[in-house]
Amino acid sequence: MLEGHTGLYTDMYELTMAQAYLRDGTAEEPAVFDYFFRKLPFGGGFVVFAGLSDLLELIENLRFSAEDLDYLKGLGFAAEFLEYLGRFRFRGAVFSVREGEVVFPLEPVVRVEGGLLETQLVETALLNFLNFESLIATKAARLRLAAGPRLLSEFGLRRSHGLGGIHASRAAVIGGCDTTSNVYAAWRFGLRPTGTMAHSYIESHATELEAFRKFSESRPEGCIFLVDTYDTLRSGLPNAIRAAKEMEGRGHRPYAVRLDSGDLAYLAKQARRMLDEAGLGYVKIMASNLLDERVIRSLLAQGAPIDLFGVGTRLATGAPDGALDGVYKLAEAGGEPRLKLSENLAKTTLPGRKAIVRCSDANGLFEADAIILEDEPDAARMVHPFEPGKSLRLEDFRKERLHVKVMEDGRRLGDPEPVERIAAYARDRLAALPEEHKRFENPHIYKVGLSDRLAGVRDDLLRRFREEE
Amino acid sequence: MLEGHTGLYTDMYELTMAQAYLRDGTAEEPAVFDYFFRKLPFGGGFVVFAGLSDLLELIENLRFSAEDLDYLKGLGFAAEFLEYLGRFRFRGAVFSVREGEVVFPLEPVVRVEGGLLETQLVETALLNFLNFESLIATKAARLRLAAGPRLLSEFGLRRSHGLGGIHASRAAVIGGCDTTSNVYAAWRFGLRPTGTMAHSYIESHATELEAFRKFSESRPEGCIFLVDTYDTLRSGLPNAIRAAKEMEGRGHRPYAVRLDSGDLAYLAKQARRMLDEAGLGYVKIMASNLLDERVIRSLLAQGAPIDLFGVGTRLATGAPDGALDGVYKLAEAGGEPRLKLSENLAKTTLPGRKAIVRCSDANGLFEADAIILEDEPDAARMVHPFEPGKSLRLEDFRKERLHVKVMEDGRRLGDPEPVERIAAYARDRLAALPEEHKRFENPHIYKVGLSDRLAGVRDDLLRRFREEE
Repeated sequence: MLEGHTGLYTDMYELTMAQAYLRDGTAEEPAVFDYFFRKLPFGGGFVVFAGLSDLLELIENLRFSAEDLDYLKGLGFAAEFLEYLGRFRFRGAVFSVREGEVVFPLEPVVRVEGGLLETQLVETALLNFLNFESLIATKAARLRLAAGPRLLSEFGLRRSHGLGGIHASRAAVIGGCDTTSNVYAAWRFGLRPTGTMAHSYIESHATELEAFRKFSESRPEGCIFLVDTYDTLRSGLPNAIRAAKEMEGRGHRPYAVRLDSGDLAYLAKQARRMLDEAGLGYVKIMASNLLDERVIRSLLAQGAPIDLFGVGTRLATGAPDGALDGVYKLAEAGGEPRLKLSENLAKTTLPGRKAIVRCSDANGLFEADAIILEDEPDAARMVHPFEPGKSLRLEDFRKERLHVKVMEDGRRLGDPEPVERIAAYARDRLAALPEEHKRFENPHIYKVGLSDRLAGVRDDLLRRFREEE
Repeated sequence: MLEGHTGLYTDMYELTMAQAYLRDGTAEEPAVFDYFFRKLPFGGGFVVFAGLSDLLELIENLRFSAEDLDYLKGLGFAAEFLEYLGRFRFRGAVFSVREGEVVFPLEPVVRVEGGLLETQLVETALLNFLNFESLIATKAARLRLAAGPRLLSEFGLRRSHGLGGIHASRAAVIGGCDTTSNVYAAWRFGLRPTGTMAHSYIESHATELEAFRKFSESRPEGCIFLVDTYDTLRSGLPNAIRAAKEMEGRGHRPYAVRLDSGDLAYLAKQARRMLDEAGLGYVKIMASNLLDERVIRSLLAQGAPIDLFGVGTRLATGAPDGALDGVYKLAEAGGEPRLKLSENLAKTTLPGRKAIVRCSDANGLFEADAIILEDEPDAARMVHPFEPGKSLRLEDFRKERLHVKVMEDGRRLGDPEPVERIAAYARDRLAALPEEHKRFENPHIYKVGLSDRLAGVRDDLLRRFREEE
């Protein structure tokens, strides 16, 4: 990754602070950082957490080469610090919810423990990977909710953000896409690559029919005809039907026709009728062109007989939000709980080493999450994070702790999980999330609260700050 | 780039089509593709073109390794095709406007010429780099328009799209940012890296004052104090002032204080007053926190004495658009002009090998661009691309052709241009664009037209299609 220059993949201030910590003598002081977000993207009710595996790979390989150190020397960093960086390895521990987990605002999704310098140094890369992949996995999960059991293909590499497209495809499959057009990502992460043909392929041939013929001869398996280059109903579909019949004569069958412009609902209905009348009931209909979860829902609500959706730009760029607002905040330093104050309580951070306890009902449906202190055995009740009067009793729920130790002494524990398994986990967890949190319009807010002890630690710290003023 | 697996950085359908071309015997047929976009991002009046250098680097190094071929074999590609890919090098030519150029909808910004297979094969990577970097450079140019001569820093790596953040920083500097927080991008592209400190740095110390002291001792040059961790006016600024006075005692000076929350206009005014009263008139004020070009303009309109802006998420993700809609379309195949039809003329492509002629007035201000056929010596007038009745006489303008040959026989011509020079070019070109195209609200539409001959070629093709129906 990063052609070996992993150490430089960071914000300048992480290095500036690291140098200050080393100079202070506080570089190895124990510290605990939390990754969490405050705002749910897409006006939705959940986030599908993704990016962990890519992050761990980066942290495990975090190094400063001689060339990197030379560069940093030129930026004015001190010799003593550069020497330290030359020997640097991340030696800390990482606790995280499983990749593919359904998570909510305020939850300490990932906890990083180690020396102050090293835990600070990984901030930028951590935020970069987790914010992005979680955004895209969440978008993909919404597309899946809209598409139901239909095939969903990620197509976004041409509009994705440079090399970020590699991780977009990975996250899209975690969140619910079946396949990707991105061959690099498919190769690297074991995803299923699929594709059709471009308009240019049709145009480069003397006629559309000839283009379809040549294409089906070259690759009969999974053959998809793009039918909108000249005129969908008058040219594309008749030619696709003729080419399909010729394929049948050779013992093959095309897989689908693809509609990429015009009124997709109308065209899909016409296409279905034409294909069926030609005895090609098995040929599927694929639709693409600026799709998102709302367009897909609308198409299906209109009864459009679409079997496959290709989603590009709006998935791979996480439109319209474009970013998850996750942050990485100090929770403990030198063994003492820490917080960042803010004028409003909602932006004050949660101090201490924390765990997340998920509470489910007798049917296994998720009901509430309690954030507790790591050393608490259980939480009998939780309080609202910002409205102390509100509380919820937790005795009757089934409970599970969501954090797993995924890195120790800078080494990843266990092999990287295959994307397929992460995607299956995300599917299972989303299935256990009640419908009202998954609807697109005004989803019900999932309950996240604090144990009394955690709220107490925070409130004590707040009181202490107020008294000092 | 891509750890050597450059050939796989593509959409599956490019490979499927390539195999079909090889099988057809049309792989080496001459072809011409254009890169252009249809819609200006951000509701603005221009695009700053960027990403060319990264694209050329990729194309020059486009290879399929033994491992790649093995992978593709597993996907069912034919042995003959894999053998061809094993020997594959891009041998075509690339004509492009200069990186940093100001460009407009419909213009064939980049033209790729070569064999049909190779010119098709580079499509995805081309779109991936050019769409993204041009989007970000354009956003940065808008920020620069709002910020005037003030320092503008790109801060977005933590919210950018994975490794796409590397190219976001490059493009941000091309478009108008002075510096970036992204050390990797700074190292790789020769940008200027800058940074401040995180809230966690303050929190990890016993007191805010101690944090400022330690920080200023570790790195007195360019020292910026983050003053909003606890209370900006009652704690952050008084402590920063005290630390600054102590620095003065040691013969140093802090560079700035940074406001990262709250009402930035109000706080900046208060901070300026407090700093000035303490004899620290030289200490600059930096502002950050969800800034974009409109917020910056509003802050300055309110008289906020801000000297430096740090812009993160909304720059690095190209918010709110998130994507430029650039496409790559076949313009010629086998020596014949080609086009993609569409129900509306505006989406029909422009056939043939084309050039862009920029027309400027006597003061060097850009007035109009004519798209002409490459072999036309000049354009005496241009017609509106979709409204044949409208035309503009071009005799009185100064004219320049915008395309430069940047690659021949698959080799880049000339050394990669330093980002600094590209940025200077963008600055010059934006300066020559009249103000009315640069305003944020309803910018005046820049005139782009076609030469009579080009319009004629297109209309002939359209007529021929209609007759065939």
